[in-house]
Amino acid sequence: MRFAHTMIRVKDMDTSIAFYRDALGLDLVDHHELPGADATLAFLKDARSGLEIELTYNHDGRDYTLGDGFGHLAFFVESVDAKYDELATKGVHFSLLPKTMKNGTRIAFAKDPTGYTIEFIEDPARAA
Amino acid sequence: MRFAHTMIRVKDMDTSIAFYRDALGLDLVDHHELPGADATLAFLKDARSGLEIELTYNHDGRDYTLGDGFGHLAFFVESVDAKYDELATKGVHFSLLPKTMKNGTRIAFAKDPTGYTIEFIEDPARAA
Repeated sequence: MRFAHTMIRVKDMDTSIAFYRDALGLDLVDHHELPGADATLAFLKDARSGLEIELTYNHDGRDYTLGDGFGHLAFFVESVDAKYDELATKGVHFSLLPKTMKNGTRIAFAKDPTGYTIEFIEDPARAA
Repeated sequence: MRFAHTMIRVKDMDTSIAFYRDALGLDLVDHHELPGADATLAFLKDARSGLEIELTYNHDGRDYTLGDGFGHLAFFVESVDAKYDELATKGVHFSLLPKTMKNGTRIAFAKDPTGYTIEFIEDPARAA
């Protein structure tokens, strides 16, 4: 058994691909219609870890209840402050500005276009 | 930047660890209290992909609204039917029994103890 992907449903595929590919820098490795389901799928891959995120867009334009169970997708970065500066310039919204936690780790939380939380964790060794 | 983990909040840490470690076979690589937050964290790692799932348990025993935005965590397996037999014997509930999709892929959906969906995708080459 091997982990394949994390799937999230998105409200707008174009802005979601723009966020994950163009802002976060993931690779769009697959993008196709789901036969018979009236839905479009996109797979975005982090080249370093091999992780894939599957985005599902249902063509009926439905809204979603995000709830409070799913927490976030987290990424290690060299510098949380540099990542914040880079993404804020691109118009990404942050729900938690760069902050040093009690355990000494520097983190920040951004929001993707649907409203899911993306965590950035400063850890240069693990980000490389 | 490198993907770190997917975080989900769980209603019961012991049964969640039993599911992800003992039933799914992930490695419990970290398990500690979150200082000052009245919460316990557990990190479970898939040895093949390196993916980690972070489980957060809030000590106040709160319930969660899972919503319909987050889709699933997916794993490639050698055989969906063999995985179903193995997990059903361990008492895991399936919301979709093994089924062949229109595109020919055989899949099944299980539920974790909190109610999150776990997808199994038959793909022996990618499961190895």
